[in-house]
Amino acid sequence: MLRVGYPDTIDEELLSELPDGIELIRLSERMDYTVEIDVWIPDPYLTVAVKVWPHIRGVKLVLAMMAGTEWIPPVVGPHVTICNAHGAHNISTAEWTLGAILAMLKYFPLYLDIQRTELWKRRFEASVHYADITGDRRPIYPPVLLEELTGKRVLIVGYGSIGKDIERMMGPFDVDVKRVARSARTAPEVHAASELNALLPWAEVVVLIMPSTAESRWLIDRPQLRLMKQGTLLVNAARGPVVNTDALVEALKSGRIRAAVDVTDPEPLPAGHPLWSCPNLLITPHIGGSSPKFSQRAMRTAAGELARYMAGEPLKNVVQIGV
Amino acid sequence: MLRVGYPDTIDEELLSELPDGIELIRLSERMDYTVEIDVWIPDPYLTVAVKVWPHIRGVKLVLAMMAGTEWIPPVVGPHVTICNAHGAHNISTAEWTLGAILAMLKYFPLYLDIQRTELWKRRFEASVHYADITGDRRPIYPPVLLEELTGKRVLIVGYGSIGKDIERMMGPFDVDVKRVARSARTAPEVHAASELNALLPWAEVVVLIMPSTAESRWLIDRPQLRLMKQGTLLVNAARGPVVNTDALVEALKSGRIRAAVDVTDPEPLPAGHPLWSCPNLLITPHIGGSSPKFSQRAMRTAAGELARYMAGEPLKNVVQIGV
Repeated sequence: MLRVGYPDTIDEELLSELPDGIELIRLSERMDYTVEIDVWIPDPYLTVAVKVWPHIRGVKLVLAMMAGTEWIPPVVGPHVTICNAHGAHNISTAEWTLGAILAMLKYFPLYLDIQRTELWKRRFEASVHYADITGDRRPIYPPVLLEELTGKRVLIVGYGSIGKDIERMMGPFDVDVKRVARSARTAPEVHAASELNALLPWAEVVVLIMPSTAESRWLIDRPQLRLMKQGTLLVNAARGPVVNTDALVEALKSGRIRAAVDVTDPEPLPAGHPLWSCPNLLITPHIGGSSPKFSQRAMRTAAGELARYMAGEPLKNVVQIGV
Repeated sequence: MLRVGYPDTIDEELLSELPDGIELIRLSERMDYTVEIDVWIPDPYLTVAVKVWPHIRGVKLVLAMMAGTEWIPPVVGPHVTICNAHGAHNISTAEWTLGAILAMLKYFPLYLDIQRTELWKRRFEASVHYADITGDRRPIYPPVLLEELTGKRVLIVGYGSIGKDIERMMGPFDVDVKRVARSARTAPEVHAASELNALLPWAEVVVLIMPSTAESRWLIDRPQLRLMKQGTLLVNAARGPVVNTDALVEALKSGRIRAAVDVTDPEPLPAGHPLWSCPNLLITPHIGGSSPKFSQRAMRTAAGELARYMAGEPLKNVVQIGV
């Protein structure tokens, strides 16, 4: 019988998602013995998982309950096949993105700041408050402290499954969407990354949701920020290094753009870093992909892979083929 | 030729929306003469409009560029027909509602507060920060400082055109919606207001978007707040008096519910009012219906009425028939 090792930290109810015909082996970071298993579901916390690894033998397949699995190959080596929980972060990340866009367009950070003053400030008084906290005293900027997503021109940079979910959630807002990915394709039309600079001046909202790779590092740098129109909203739901942080700080401090970021570079963002106090910025601490439903979704994805593995069918979310 | 008076405060480009075959008369709050007009488009600001009224004669039809027209009948009397700009607030109000729901479910007010501390706090540290600012030290409340709208049970109380737009914008989130209006109807199923209490324990999000009437005053009072489950999100996009403010303050301070309100009672909310400092609360100062696109939408609605008036067709958004 196939032996499947699982972390003792997860809710055991989730195990009911797994197919029949397997033997479940409970693994603890405090284990002081060694067990043979065929399939390893590592703890989502790297620090826990690496303590378990020396105590397991015979692993042929790793089913990760997360999308980011960069840490696994160095730990398990090249002979093990690794699958990730592709898609389990999609809905939460897309929801974070839509929430961040609406929160910024409705100026919720400003109104929360006003709420702290315990004064009812709207229209002109809200503008004065805005100028006070941003230092931006252009008389009619922003013209109205409340905007609409409906009808906006939105550039989605990165068009994998999360990018598609973001577009789906924007459906009711009749936005004008353009898409950019590594390479151009059609149906729907996706522009190649080489066209990014030409598209930036068009956009009113720029959403970053591409993977973090050598190619995407600093994809948004000073030239790209300069190409954005005054007041553009930049949303980083991807990874911190996709944006040059120093350039972002400059663009925010000059009042040229607004931003909402769930990720930063460096991350964690250290105390006192200038990004913390930039105007027109919402920072959340890399929570966009989190969800109370995440473990269940990830376990369902793992269960699907396991069923395919047992049936000898091709696996779906392979990030490393064991050699 | 039909004489149409319009306020000198509006962008004259909007006048291109109006039908041909009319004479446009510009009206100023500083005018010191009297003019004959047939149709009056009053300034959206009551204080300006009432200064113009003594200087105009012969008005048979008022086309208001706003939805709230309670102030007009006392000014113009019963002999004038009044139309409002029904629907011009819909999109902005529905967007505010969706933005407020997502912002609260993603705990943006908490993360903005953390951002001010310039410390990267997530998971446990974010929970400690949450307990510090809310006073709520139940160990696992909230269990995860980030929730999903997807799959939530949403009760929409008030099911006019804005309620429908809110439901439309929630479409991609696969929410489980129930609807309440004054009287029950079908296709889609709408429950009568008498069923509200029975539905409240079911809901995870309660959206208020009914008109402010004698019947809807304090529709949400202590018994209704007690019927809501722990952690329910109450969203008031309607009018302040729909909720008993003292009861809301108690429910928020006890940590039982969360709320986002664009309207308050009293309004403006006075400095030092206890609502300002309640935990788990987003207050915006009655901005939900505002939009940079509002004037254009309202003028289009007025233009439609004017075309119908000139063609002798029935008007659509009549709030008073001149007698």
